[in-house]
Order: sequence, then structure tokens, then C-alpha cells
Amino acid sequence: MTEPDQPTPRVPADELCDFVTRALRAAGLPETDAAHAAELMTEADLRGTDTHGVFRLPTYARRITAGTIKARPHIRIVEERAATALVDGDNGMGHLVMRFAAQTAIAKARRGGMGWVGVRGSNHSGSAALYAMMPLAHDMVGLCLSVSGINHLPPTGGAEALLGTNPIAIAVPALDEPPVVMDMSPTVASYGKVRLAAARGEPMPVGWMVERDGTPLTDASRAADGVMLPIGGYKGYGLALMIGLVAGQLNGAAFGRGVSDPGKVASNTGQAVAAIAIDAFAPVEEFRRSIDESVRTIRGSARLPGVERIWLPGEQSHLTRLERSARGIPMPETLRRSLDALARELGIDPVL
Amino acid sequence: MTEPDQPTPRVPADELCDFVTRALRAAGLPETDAAHAAELMTEADLRGTDTHGVFRLPTYARRITAGTIKARPHIRIVEERAATALVDGDNGMGHLVMRFAAQTAIAKARRGGMGWVGVRGSNHSGSAALYAMMPLAHDMVGLCLSVSGINHLPPTGGAEALLGTNPIAIAVPALDEPPVVMDMSPTVASYGKVRLAAARGEPMPVGWMVERDGTPLTDASRAADGVMLPIGGYKGYGLALMIGLVAGQLNGAAFGRGVSDPGKVASNTGQAVAAIAIDAFAPVEEFRRSIDESVRTIRGSARLPGVERIWLPGEQSHLTRLERSARGIPMPETLRRSLDALARELGIDPVL
Repeated sequence: MTEPDQPTPRVPADELCDFVTRALRAAGLPETDAAHAAELMTEADLRGTDTHGVFRLPTYARRITAGTIKARPHIRIVEERAATALVDGDNGMGHLVMRFAAQTAIAKARRGGMGWVGVRGSNHSGSAALYAMMPLAHDMVGLCLSVSGINHLPPTGGAEALLGTNPIAIAVPALDEPPVVMDMSPTVASYGKVRLAAARGEPMPVGWMVERDGTPLTDASRAADGVMLPIGGYKGYGLALMIGLVAGQLNGAAFGRGVSDPGKVASNTGQAVAAIAIDAFAPVEEFRRSIDESVRTIRGSARLPGVERIWLPGEQSHLTRLERSARGIPMPETLRRSLDALARELGIDPVL
Repeated sequence: MTEPDQPTPRVPADELCDFVTRALRAAGLPETDAAHAAELMTEADLRGTDTHGVFRLPTYARRITAGTIKARPHIRIVEERAATALVDGDNGMGHLVMRFAAQTAIAKARRGGMGWVGVRGSNHSGSAALYAMMPLAHDMVGLCLSVSGINHLPPTGGAEALLGTNPIAIAVPALDEPPVVMDMSPTVASYGKVRLAAARGEPMPVGWMVERDGTPLTDASRAADGVMLPIGGYKGYGLALMIGLVAGQLNGAAFGRGVSDPGKVASNTGQAVAAIAIDAFAPVEEFRRSIDESVRTIRGSARLPGVERIWLPGEQSHLTRLERSARGIPMPETLRRSLDALARELGIDPVL
């Protein structure tokens, strides 16, 4: 164990990315696919989304090895219009399916101003922000909706978790300021935070979860007995539902009771990604500069007593990315042990 | 005053619609425009969205008379791609601008699977659900984002209201079940509810608003001294901000400090409306039937103790619409007096 006053060891991002690539190759992915998925997983860690990055590699790799995620899927467009596409991920790695979908949306937005790509037959693809941000480099606004692979949220008044913590991410590029990137689930807490509390043996605050009779549940180790609470009551329920219908059911992907434990069968995860070309609405540089101005206005506006700084969505992730690019990605002992165990299983060298 | 045990008088929807048409014509709108706007305002009342319907007619009519809303605007597309359009509302009635925008989005979705139309130079257009629902009759999913004309929401940690209670509405058609229609602002309460509490002399619950130092504000009559609270803390802030950037700033419409009192100058309100053609993703009837199934699954799922019914988003509005179509729209004495005063100002017959 690391001593309490020792800083968490760091691993350079390219070393971690190399390890993930080797692990995914050993699990059966073609080299280019392994590299692409590894890059996205590492990017999640760089941005501080630790619960949606390399932390999940052992699960992904074991599913690929077990055949519950297909190593060599035929990811393809099965329905297409000028501005839309429906992509069947053929039960491949979610990262690869969503990367393909985002690229398709970007190409459509370049031609017609906007592209909307729905996805079925996908799997967990890390954080939604990764795909909402892909259009940014093309002077586009990005949007990503995703249906969670496990249901934790009941409808308002309900006791059965029929909905996921379905995230929505929206990304808008600035000029000199970091892009504005919102990535949120419509629940008070993400399930990742519940897992973290359980792993640390800490109680959850009242308001994250309730028992199936509606009474507060604060014992994180008993999370499986309870359900999550939505933000804003019926509003969060509505948001989770609409994301499920639009990113799941419209695409022929799993929704409601059709959402099953992805460890057992193909999850048929549904997602959607959209790109909007800025120049279909405004001169690009002028728009990006105006976003800088809005960002600075908000950041510089009057603060409540005791508040040191007003943050923009995505700003802390951007700063974390700068810091971790320079100093490496933190590798807590539990993560290192988990990756070492995976390396032994796959017969590859451990992460350096 | 109506006696406490007297039911609120009702006015048939077509009578109310006729009155609104006459009022808008008297204020200067061309006949067809007046009829279209009246139909949308009446529809809001039919669906029970009383704060966003005929209740607002006197404000609209006086702004038109005063010239702060243009009676005969040149509503037009100023930028266009295959899947997108930017509409300049020329400071016309928001209802007419958004009706035009929604029709444009529907036409584009029919051709290319999806249409996204941004709007600037618009005004308050009633409830966002009205425009998200327009694509439904064309076998499409609808989406509407709107930037509020007044800022009530500060960024998380901030004391200056730089953001509006910017609503998002999403509508998905079913087959035999009512459409699923979510229409929500990212604040705990809408400002309409605050106004209602103030009008009734009732206190607000803790959690709706805070003073500018962050302490709870429950005296609704002092609402102007405080700011609204977002749902889910930073999540609601993020949602309001992204809607402001995408439906406002991208379209060259007002955002942040650019949002001003619409009674004084042209509000330059920004909105966006999108339509997604179902047949670009799935066979229409099969999809609509599957929505019926999801609706029934949710409605019939296990309930918390004491809960009589699980509602789908938009279901209560649908039932209200059925009831009010048959029995008329409630006309409380305060509303009747407000409409009678307007009728005298405009020199028209009052509502029957």
C-alpha cells in the first residue's frame, strides 16, 4: 500500500495508452481498433473522468475474451438519409462504434449543416463528453446521448428501476478559452460515485438513493437494494426517459426492461451523436470569440460569499487534462493491482 | 369575485381562440397571423399550461401596439444548408416565428431525415412543447430549446442572474397512447410558479429561490430581490448555459447580459427547433407501437407506497386537453378582468 502521505504514483499518458492498446490487442482486437479505443480511454483519464476510463479496461477486456463484446465486429450504417444515419455496432467495443458514429455525424454536418447518428448494438463507450467533443475540431457543436447498460432509476412514484442514469453531453468550442463541455446524468449522483463510496466504506449523503419503499438509503454497500434519485424530481425522470426513447428505442436498441446485465448477453446499447456546423449559423471565428466573451463574463461575475471561483462546464476537466498531460495519470494501488492482474491473464507486460 | 364554492367559469376553446384572434388583429397583426398565434395560445391553455397561454395575451398585444413587437415582420431564412436553417424573426410574434421555424425543420427532416432550425430576432412564444409537438403529426420526433427573455438563474457559485430558466422540450409520438412530451426548465420551479405564489400571497418552499447572498428566499413578493435555483446544482446550471449558447448565441440572439427587459427594446430572443424523421431509423408504425408498450410498462410498474398512479411526461397535459376541449377553458375572474380591460383598450368585443 502507498503510505498515506505519499502522493499517488503517476504513469505518463502515452505509457498508459500503450498498455491499454496491448491489452485490447491481446484480447483479440485488431491493432488499429485497439489503438483507437485505447486513445479514447486514456483521454477520459486525462480529463479526470476516472470512473469512465482505464478503470473499466479489465471489464471490457474480459467481455471481449468471453465473447460478450465482439472483437472483430462489422460496424456499419444500416439506414441512411442525407442528415441522418443509423449505425449497427454489431456488439463491438462501444468506443469504436461511437467513434465511427461521431465521424459519420461530422461528415454529414460538413455537407448539410447537421448530422444526427443513432446507434444500436453498441456497448459502454466511456464518457459521453468524448463523442460530444469530437465535432469541436471541425468547428462544430457536438451532442451525445447515451442509454446506460444498467437501470438504476425508477419513474417518479415508481419502485422499479426502468431507466438508466442516461447521460447527455453538449460541447461548444471557444477561441482561446477551453471549450464549454457539459456532461451530466439526470440523477443526483452518478452510479460511479455510489461505487466509489462503497469502495471507500463511506456513507452516501441523503438524496442520492432510496430504498424500494422510498426511504433514504445511505449505506453505499447496500446500493443494489435501492434505486437512484433523479435531479429535479419528475424533471430528471423525464430527461432520462426521453434520452432512453430517442437514443435507445428509436434506434432499435435496448430500453426499459430490455436493458439487461451486459456481462451476460450482448447489451444492445443505444447511443446518439450529433454535430452542428457553426458556419451554417455564424462566422466561425466571430462565434468562437463570442463564446470566449461569454465564458469570461460568467467567470468574472459576482460570486456568493465564500465562493473562490465560478467554473464553466468542462473547465476543470480541461485543467486536469493539462496537469495530467504534463505530470502523468494517477495510478492508485487498487487500479495498478487490477491492471497487473489483467496483464497476467492476457500474458502481456504490465503497465510501466 | 367568484364564491369559493363556485366552480371557475369556462369558455369554449373556439370562443377564446376567436377573442385572441380579434385582439391580435386589432393590435395590428394580419388576419392569418393573428389566427395562427391565437391557435397556439389557445392550445397552451387547452393543455393546462395556463402561465404560457392566453394569460400572456395582454402583454403581447400591448407590446405589439407599442411597437416593441413588430406587427408585420419579415420572418425569413437568412442562412440555409440542406439540414439546417437560421431564421430571423424580425422581432415578430414569437409564436409566428417558431411556427415558421418548426415547419422549416419538418420540411428538411422529410427530405434529409433531420432538420435543425435556429432562430434569432424572435420573442416569447409560449410553451416550448407546442413546437416540439409540431413534428409529431409528420411521424417525427420533435425538440425545442428556448432562451428566456429574462435572466433569473446565476451560474453555480454566482450571485448575478446571467442565465434564463431556458426550457427544453422533447416530444415522441406513440400509436394509441398519448405522445410522450417532456417540457422542463432547468430550475427547480418555473418563474410562472413564483408569480403565481406572489399573486396568491403564498410563501415559496425553501429550494426555489435564494437571496443574492445565498440564503433561502421564501417571500414570493420579494422575488425580484432573489435568484432561482437550478435542478441538480451545477447540472441545471450547465443545462441552462448550454441551451443559452446553442439556442441563443449560435443564432446571434441575446445571451447573458445581452438578455434585456423585452418590454423596452426588441428582445432578440433565441430559440431552436428540430425534427427527426422516424422512418430514417425504424418502420413508423412498429416504432409508435413500441412506444405504446414502453408507456404501458412504465405506467404499470411497481409503485412506491401511497402512490396512486405513475405518470408519463405530457400525459396529464393530454388528459387536461381532452377535458378542456369538452368542457371549455377555465376563466378565473382575474383573467377575465385582464382580458376585458384589453378588449376596451383595443375597442373590441370582450370574450363571451
